[in-house]
Amino acid sequence: MASMATLFVKTPSPSPSFPKTFNTHFSPALKLSIPLASKPRTRQRLRISNALIEPDGGKLVELFVEESKKGEKKREAASLPRIKLSRIDLQWVHVISEGWSSPLRGFMRESEFLQTLHFNSLRLEDGSVVNMSVPIVLAIDDAQKRLIGESTRVALVDSDNNLIAILKDIEIYKHHKEERIARTWGTTAPGLPYVDQAITNAGNWLIGGDLEVIEPIKYHDGLDRFRLSPAELREEFTRRNADAVFAFQLRNPVHNGHALLMTDTRRRLLEMGYKNPILLLHPLGGYTKADDVPLSWRMKQHEKVLEDGVLDPETTVVSIFPSPMHYAGPTEVQWHAKARINAGANFYIVGRDPAGMGHPIEKRDLYDADHGKKVLSMAPGLERLNILPFKVAAYDKSQGKMAFFDPSRSHDFLFISGTKMRTLARNKENPPEGFMCPNGWKVLVDYYDSLVPADNGKVPEAVPV
Amino acid sequence: MASMATLFVKTPSPSPSFPKTFNTHFSPALKLSIPLASKPRTRQRLRISNALIEPDGGKLVELFVEESKKGEKKREAASLPRIKLSRIDLQWVHVISEGWSSPLRGFMRESEFLQTLHFNSLRLEDGSVVNMSVPIVLAIDDAQKRLIGESTRVALVDSDNNLIAILKDIEIYKHHKEERIARTWGTTAPGLPYVDQAITNAGNWLIGGDLEVIEPIKYHDGLDRFRLSPAELREEFTRRNADAVFAFQLRNPVHNGHALLMTDTRRRLLEMGYKNPILLLHPLGGYTKADDVPLSWRMKQHEKVLEDGVLDPETTVVSIFPSPMHYAGPTEVQWHAKARINAGANFYIVGRDPAGMGHPIEKRDLYDADHGKKVLSMAPGLERLNILPFKVAAYDKSQGKMAFFDPSRSHDFLFISGTKMRTLARNKENPPEGFMCPNGWKVLVDYYDSLVPADNGKVPEAVPV
Repeated sequence: MASMATLFVKTPSPSPSFPKTFNTHFSPALKLSIPLASKPRTRQRLRISNALIEPDGGKLVELFVEESKKGEKKREAASLPRIKLSRIDLQWVHVISEGWSSPLRGFMRESEFLQTLHFNSLRLEDGSVVNMSVPIVLAIDDAQKRLIGESTRVALVDSDNNLIAILKDIEIYKHHKEERIARTWGTTAPGLPYVDQAITNAGNWLIGGDLEVIEPIKYHDGLDRFRLSPAELREEFTRRNADAVFAFQLRNPVHNGHALLMTDTRRRLLEMGYKNPILLLHPLGGYTKADDVPLSWRMKQHEKVLEDGVLDPETTVVSIFPSPMHYAGPTEVQWHAKARINAGANFYIVGRDPAGMGHPIEKRDLYDADHGKKVLSMAPGLERLNILPFKVAAYDKSQGKMAFFDPSRSHDFLFISGTKMRTLARNKENPPEGFMCPNGWKVLVDYYDSLVPADNGKVPEAVPV
Repeated sequence: MASMATLFVKTPSPSPSFPKTFNTHFSPALKLSIPLASKPRTRQRLRISNALIEPDGGKLVELFVEESKKGEKKREAASLPRIKLSRIDLQWVHVISEGWSSPLRGFMRESEFLQTLHFNSLRLEDGSVVNMSVPIVLAIDDAQKRLIGESTRVALVDSDNNLIAILKDIEIYKHHKEERIARTWGTTAPGLPYVDQAITNAGNWLIGGDLEVIEPIKYHDGLDRFRLSPAELREEFTRRNADAVFAFQLRNPVHNGHALLMTDTRRRLLEMGYKNPILLLHPLGGYTKADDVPLSWRMKQHEKVLEDGVLDPETTVVSIFPSPMHYAGPTEVQWHAKARINAGANFYIVGRDPAGMGHPIEKRDLYDADHGKKVLSMAPGLERLNILPFKVAAYDKSQGKMAFFDPSRSHDFLFISGTKMRTLARNKENPPEGFMCPNGWKVLVDYYDSLVPADNGKVPEAVPV
């Protein structure tokens, strides 16, 4: 993956003009207090960083323990009650600790949980409102609650008992699962992937508090170097002199319809007067359902798309968004957009039925295909974000390539669904020429080829992540 | 009900100092444009009206057709497609037309419906936010949708085909019932009363639009004169020189614990420096579930409470709130509070588990008893309203009366639940002396006595409304 690495791998040492504390130059206090005229070097830094949208709450949250205090924190943690984190819990610690959920400083306490469920937003102490649509919570069971007793802090450890973080000033409250599910997904039907994975068998209590994270979260899967934090992304956009950042969330292979859309978006931004719009191509890297293409294969596919020149490496940053996937449609798309504000994006591309899926027990889509876009455009706390609705691209048989759908000659167009794409790749068939770059397609075929067929000789639709 | 009528029946002719257009003196435009010093009479009116909280959106909505245009509107309606309203639909027309849901001007269009479901609030054109937590929508079925065709307006008629209103600039959109229920109630369990009554068998489409209501809604049940509109209540509060209005929503008989709370609230408001706090005792008058005590009996009971001097008629306005009941707990309590802002209340008393009920299929309460109060205190658009949490009152055996619960001598207190109260009244037993005024209690006993026993000789718990 060498070629991709040059595009978005973390810079080993920061460029000399930017301090290691990435978020310093986004602090509003700094903007107000420094006399710009007398400090030209400071002014230049401010000018550039001002081009990026401010993080929610005004300051990007980062929750890592300072190097000098690590020993002390580790000793402290040794004496605290221990809570073992699931893989998804760990992904949320990752998300919170790097500030994707700024201004959240830890797992939600009840007041944040309730505001999220009822209002999809949080009111801050100064009266301002930030968006927050999915509950970011940590469940514990009765035994763990008893173990914690009167302690005001707990140690969070991974499955191998390695210390991950301390959760302090904790608050324990009831985990009303049915209500959480109903208000987040708009259904309580059995078979919602995230619910089955992370809620149904979780404990009946939630524990909120502030996080002190010992080390940045790593997965040791060969992809950690592609997991840029919001601060690192902001630094990268600043380094590239971006005056607009447009984010594209995805959890599927990139086909030429996506590429057309992204290229066209850049063209439109240039027309609007921006000089250097940068694309954040931002595949979701946390939990996904079993029949989605796994992250490692998607990253290989994205690499090929860049190698083949379908997207311009000069104006594209590919990075991994560490959040788990809820498949909660209009509720979740707000989270996807809000997190990208914190990473510096001021434009967000939204398509048909974002974060949607089929209804788990009825023969229909779970969400109205237009609701995601509509809800996103009206969501509290996202007023600063420019929403770019997705134009529909389809395969234009008359041109032999992906093009924006023209209803006046609809017979020329072929819609290739995700299911159709997967079926073709699974059967090693080729899609129409121009649907996806050939090397990208080969990755997909290789992926399905790598799956062990089930006893009946069929390649299973569901693949464990 | 003569004695009660003197307290809150509509004034036949408005007092000379207040014009018939009640809401004129709440208009912010008026406040800004009239030079106060030169018009003492105007100034006096403004001073008084300023004591009342401003309606949501700045101006109280009233949607009645002017007298001079009624003929024209009726002729127009005759040529329009007709939609027949259910009893609950009619209650919502009542609610919307008098401005309880200001600034709503009709049944919700999709953008309002989605904002209500996801954010419990609406963003207005000027960027400000008002609370709106329950969907106020009108369902139609496929046949009605076909009948409407391309028409941009429809006539709304009651069950006897009397013209009620014209709905104009209509928008028809999908009625996603499961999602509506899940996001409003936080459950989709079968047996939610409002869902069974008004959603399950309703049509698969919703029709939004602006209302032009031909005549104020009347029920001809002997209680219409007690149904004061928000404008009429505001006039009444102004007439009484109220400098604070505290609302108490209820759908149950008033016992001495309620009375203690209301009296104590007035005492606290006086201590805070208010000179004349007025209580709005505001029983809900729309749809209620079968085992609630019907409105007519509750009104008789409230009358006795005032006659017996448990509450002070001088500082109490009893009126009927025309909304149907959702039993949607923390979601609905916001609606109950928001509607009272529009009626002029700036203080709202909230108790344990407001608008709650038992879970329809599990042996527990549907909502956490504290969530209503918490959600209400954080709700967007209700920042202007002062939330007064309900102190717990119980029967103090040592004093032989209702008193605020004192945990330090909990053994002295007896909690009498609604179920216990109903069981006693049904069996013609008396509660402990001091629980409820004797004449009020007699109304309850009479009510249960009036019910026809079921075949098994037992008085049914469920009574059709």
